[in-house]
Amino acid sequence: MATSSAAGLGPVLEAGGPELARLLARTEGRLGEVIESYGDRLAEHAAGTLVAGGKRLRPILVYLCAGATVGAARGAAPLSESEAGAAVVHAGAAVELLHMATLVHDDVLDRAALRRGRPTVFRSGGRIAATATGDLLFSRAFAELVMTGDADAVRALSRASTALAHGELMQRADAWRADVSPDRYLERCELKTARLFEAACRLGAILGRPGPEAADALGAFGSRIGIAFQIFDDVLDVSGPAERTGKRRGTDLLDGTVTLPLILARRRDRDLRALDLREVVTDPAQAEAVCDRIALSGALGDARGEALHHVAEAKAALSDLSLPEGPRHALDLVADGVVERYS
Amino acid sequence: MATSSAAGLGPVLEAGGPELARLLARTEGRLGEVIESYGDRLAEHAAGTLVAGGKRLRPILVYLCAGATVGAARGAAPLSESEAGAAVVHAGAAVELLHMATLVHDDVLDRAALRRGRPTVFRSGGRIAATATGDLLFSRAFAELVMTGDADAVRALSRASTALAHGELMQRADAWRADVSPDRYLERCELKTARLFEAACRLGAILGRPGPEAADALGAFGSRIGIAFQIFDDVLDVSGPAERTGKRRGTDLLDGTVTLPLILARRRDRDLRALDLREVVTDPAQAEAVCDRIALSGALGDARGEALHHVAEAKAALSDLSLPEGPRHALDLVADGVVERYS
Repeated sequence: MATSSAAGLGPVLEAGGPELARLLARTEGRLGEVIESYGDRLAEHAAGTLVAGGKRLRPILVYLCAGATVGAARGAAPLSESEAGAAVVHAGAAVELLHMATLVHDDVLDRAALRRGRPTVFRSGGRIAATATGDLLFSRAFAELVMTGDADAVRALSRASTALAHGELMQRADAWRADVSPDRYLERCELKTARLFEAACRLGAILGRPGPEAADALGAFGSRIGIAFQIFDDVLDVSGPAERTGKRRGTDLLDGTVTLPLILARRRDRDLRALDLREVVTDPAQAEAVCDRIALSGALGDARGEALHHVAEAKAALSDLSLPEGPRHALDLVADGVVERYS
Repeated sequence: MATSSAAGLGPVLEAGGPELARLLARTEGRLGEVIESYGDRLAEHAAGTLVAGGKRLRPILVYLCAGATVGAARGAAPLSESEAGAAVVHAGAAVELLHMATLVHDDVLDRAALRRGRPTVFRSGGRIAATATGDLLFSRAFAELVMTGDADAVRALSRASTALAHGELMQRADAWRADVSPDRYLERCELKTARLFEAACRLGAILGRPGPEAADALGAFGSRIGIAFQIFDDVLDVSGPAERTGKRRGTDLLDGTVTLPLILARRRDRDLRALDLREVVTDPAQAEAVCDRIALSGALGDARGEALHHVAEAKAALSDLSLPEGPRHALDLVADGVVERYS
């Protein structure tokens, strides 16, 4: 259940136009300020993590949802120039900080030396500094959102944050259990990944133009693409290729994380069903051999199909809202992007 | 800088009377509900941590501050039966959850097998489950406080939470540096320990009878006793005795944490000043030998004096408020308690 890969967001950025670009630039500025507020070398770790950054997919969701006029426009000025714009940027920074906090802690747990080609905090600072850095980013995420003064917004983030930790615990409890059900797997995806996507969209609705009444529909959109995003990450861990993902295939198998491709492959391949993972997968070469076997079974197509189903549901969730063409198109592109990046 | 020891709170509980007892009973009920909301075996870890519990010193601070009538009484009904009582109990549970989160993470970092005579989450569930359990408790702390709907309250907790992580990072950066200044040491105490004490008192003020206008004075009280509390914990790590503290002397020295007793002893003892900690302290027996040397120098008395100074400042902070005799007495007992437990 690695979540390191970002979607190909070029078309989304294009559709979002200068307004999205301005909000993203302000996010970088805000993240920089958060880091600078720690002054000395203690900040290095956090800075490395934030600068190494990803594609800012979660802030993008905040901004696209926040900028989507639902029904009558609430003010004609661009969001980035309005008062709501400041709150929305705090929300974008907050979801990114929370996401970074989980990455830093994941790297400690996986003893990972590299992320996106740079040394992890775990590698450069050790496990103690990395655990504390994760806690710091965690705390800063809430501090950032509290600046909006909106209790509903803080509630949305605290729910997502609780779900993330709960999902991680659930995944640990399921380790090496190849007979885990698809429903249980999807529940894990929801907790570990989708709830933060959902929170990003909810925050955009609550603090931006759509307003709280659109939070459920936009939240459902976020949740569905979050699940699709995670399924595709898990497909990628089996399918590779390594030159695209930056890591060997089968890393999930190596730490006992059973994901949808294996769950579905066991239905198609009796030999896979009989396999005791803990005995068979003890080195990377063996993990790659199991990946080959999963791919041969045809289960990757099944898993992609499941992800596409969630993408379709995400788009359907938007149909309850009378979104204008522009924002609707940009959100559809995000939904397609989480799938197209690997197919 | 271990913070495992709780003050002897008997006299405080007596002074707080049935009202404090009711609020503490509701805290236990609330913590139980938080745990039950996770249902299956995933909750075990969190449950073990919360049940193992401490003396609930931080919730007690919330309740004593919340119940203190400043000037004219705001309603005659006992706090525990008023509407504010519910918010105050959420705050008490929140500070305890945040405290527990830091303990669980500390145990991972220290690879500790026991806490208060029970297996740690690290011991029973491993480092992955323990890190996730800490994150879960962290998140739940905010979720709990958000239920008050008070943005100022959430802000107070997020500041404390940020400070805790910052303090931990600072302590790591200072590891093995015997020449760290007393001011730097006190800054660490403030970040790692005092800010959460301060937040507890602030939350009591904001959500309880005193109101936000008393938050600064009560917060200053909490901050000062937090620093005194930490200094005494650090004295105890040197002075023991082990049968009282439940652990061998010198555990701080073993992981390179330089605290006030050593900082002050180096002023009195030239040989200690010449000591290279990293070379000399490599096993528990050597750590105990250094503890003996620190004690012989007379520095423990100096350190106790510093703590007493902060206790006096804590009490002075209260004098700005026209507190009635009852609450004033109970808070004074807490202040004395953090010192008397070891002297």
